[in-house]
Amino acid sequence: MQLKMSRKIMKPDFQGEFTASILAAAASPDVISFAGGLPNPVSFPIEAMEKATAKVLAEQGAIALQYSSTQGYQPLRAWAAKRYETMGVYGVDADDIIITNGSQQALEMIGAAMLDPGDKMLVENPTYLVALQSFHLFDPEILPVTINPDGIDCDELEATIKANPEAKMIYVIPNFQNPTGLTYSRAVRERAAEILKASNLLVLEDNPYSELRFSGEAGSSFGAYLGDQCCMFGTFSKIVSPGMRIGWICCRNQELKAKLLNYKSTADLHTNIFCQMVLAQYLADNDLDAHIEKTKVLYKQKAETMMACMEKYLPEGVTFTPTEGGMFLWAELPEGITAVELYRAALEKGVAICPGDPFYETERDVRTFRVNYSNSTDEAIERGMKILGETCAELMQK
Amino acid sequence: MQLKMSRKIMKPDFQGEFTASILAAAASPDVISFAGGLPNPVSFPIEAMEKATAKVLAEQGAIALQYSSTQGYQPLRAWAAKRYETMGVYGVDADDIIITNGSQQALEMIGAAMLDPGDKMLVENPTYLVALQSFHLFDPEILPVTINPDGIDCDELEATIKANPEAKMIYVIPNFQNPTGLTYSRAVRERAAEILKASNLLVLEDNPYSELRFSGEAGSSFGAYLGDQCCMFGTFSKIVSPGMRIGWICCRNQELKAKLLNYKSTADLHTNIFCQMVLAQYLADNDLDAHIEKTKVLYKQKAETMMACMEKYLPEGVTFTPTEGGMFLWAELPEGITAVELYRAALEKGVAICPGDPFYETERDVRTFRVNYSNSTDEAIERGMKILGETCAELMQK
Repeated sequence: MQLKMSRKIMKPDFQGEFTASILAAAASPDVISFAGGLPNPVSFPIEAMEKATAKVLAEQGAIALQYSSTQGYQPLRAWAAKRYETMGVYGVDADDIIITNGSQQALEMIGAAMLDPGDKMLVENPTYLVALQSFHLFDPEILPVTINPDGIDCDELEATIKANPEAKMIYVIPNFQNPTGLTYSRAVRERAAEILKASNLLVLEDNPYSELRFSGEAGSSFGAYLGDQCCMFGTFSKIVSPGMRIGWICCRNQELKAKLLNYKSTADLHTNIFCQMVLAQYLADNDLDAHIEKTKVLYKQKAETMMACMEKYLPEGVTFTPTEGGMFLWAELPEGITAVELYRAALEKGVAICPGDPFYETERDVRTFRVNYSNSTDEAIERGMKILGETCAELMQK
Repeated sequence: MQLKMSRKIMKPDFQGEFTASILAAAASPDVISFAGGLPNPVSFPIEAMEKATAKVLAEQGAIALQYSSTQGYQPLRAWAAKRYETMGVYGVDADDIIITNGSQQALEMIGAAMLDPGDKMLVENPTYLVALQSFHLFDPEILPVTINPDGIDCDELEATIKANPEAKMIYVIPNFQNPTGLTYSRAVRERAAEILKASNLLVLEDNPYSELRFSGEAGSSFGAYLGDQCCMFGTFSKIVSPGMRIGWICCRNQELKAKLLNYKSTADLHTNIFCQMVLAQYLADNDLDAHIEKTKVLYKQKAETMMACMEKYLPEGVTFTPTEGGMFLWAELPEGITAVELYRAALEKGVAICPGDPFYETERDVRTFRVNYSNSTDEAIERGMKILGETCAELMQK
């Protein structure tokens, strides 16, 4: 047999290949890795989950193990809907929520529902590399808009929309963005919302990290400004468990919601109902905010340790953006050194970082890189940053 | 905002709309429904699952709740690989298995990996309606090949391949096919395998029901005849739990496997690892065959009850194909009455069937219909078939 696969699957996948090679190298037990993005297991409520699973199986086992609805378990959807009030979005109904296999599936579903080949869409520059990968499946023209320390560049946003009135949607991560850790200021949020409101763009707001704010003040979701023009993605991955693969789309546009449901019902029928029920039971019987607080205390300490080590060990000329939450820090090398060069040299000394390249649609050999602090010991952070600083200094002297 | 969705999502979905309307009508508590396809909860090992979840969380909680690999949990893959020996396929390795969100996701993944718009592929006629829906997402030209009581029509298969040498793949369900309940005879299996071996077709063998054989002798999987030309889909949905959404693809073609993994890693990263580990623990600690035996005893009795009632109550001229396993029976009305007419008339009297229409790529207003027996009480089967028989007789007199 001569296998002939689809054009879609045979397209080059820069993001996928780049990160696969980095994560493979970083996985060696001898390597101190800041390259990945794993939550710390402190964020997994294991004992409470044991109680929740036992209760669900004892009381509703035949429902938890049977086929279920595509939209997802109603009590879990009701929880997600209500949670939006903490982000300034009122009036969300359980019926607006579709449970997905992590918010990553939400990206793929929206891509399928919205994009034909050649369609234009906007993203922050840089942006979450898996979002780029996911959109690439549908072959759109991606228009990157610079993200500044206070959020998306509103002038550039306005100009890009004006020059591309036919663009279909924009993907943004306004809180502790991956990879930059940046958060939109209130002023940028409000101006961007005004610009977007006047546009024809469907706004996709991804929001995996906003619950992990350990200092400063939270801004409202774009859903509060834009109503049904904004689809909001959510996930339990960073606050309860990524392994359960439970996320959601909040879609208040009824026409789009119906199509997303059709698509998911064909793609995989429904998200595993057993985990949905266990999670809902866990949320009913426990104080999630108290649980998240423990994670935040730990992440704050980790972030502060890492920022202090970066101040201490990285040579002058290497800069980074402080953060108030999330899981990542974003740094920039001086002219003349690329992040890939630093990655290679540091890996030889046993430290892995994630070069910025795969987070950009077009730029390559960039000077930015991402480091993750959520899942490293203090000792690893100290030792790793010391080595990274020495490596930077060596490269700068060349 | 003016929402403009993708062409793909806006295409008419005959299968989806047809079955949604039927299942909505059949869901009324007053209706005796033979329209769906739910396993009987007797097939859910609830207590054993409680023990397995407690053990996994106590011993490996931090792994079960963390991110995991796209390919899936190794012990579960090893189990699925070994299980193929019972279907005559030897030498399958855990590394050949990709765990999916039910085998339904496997359909979507293969469609994405193989099909460009206009590509040709073969299916049995009729075939599983969700497979048609899933392939339709990729806009292929679908070439249906008649399925006879002893399996696919080999002459037609040969002619179709000859006339369409560029066709990319064929989707078959050789054991207790959905919707017909038919199984390929050994002779048909062998001849079809020869024809397929000489072709350029990737063979997709779906196999959700073969474990549910309650009489007769099982045939070998096409994977035994065709090696890496055959991708085999499997699922735990009919033997342990559909709610956990755990299925798999066995793909021994390394090039295709790599692309399927890339695709899944973008689409939803991985299938929920918690349920994968619980299932693997359940399989390690329990005798699955003894468990399946209980399900088979029940389904045999249900099938026999339904077949006896069909003999007793359906008027002469209405025929059906007996089955030796699975969950469905397939019947045919005499000329002059369509299955949709019967569906409508019977629903008015409180009985729901599934007309054959959505199982065909092109034929409409067909005379065939599917009835499910796995999840009805004996009383419901008796009463429902009596009503169905009366309704048939009335329509035949018109």
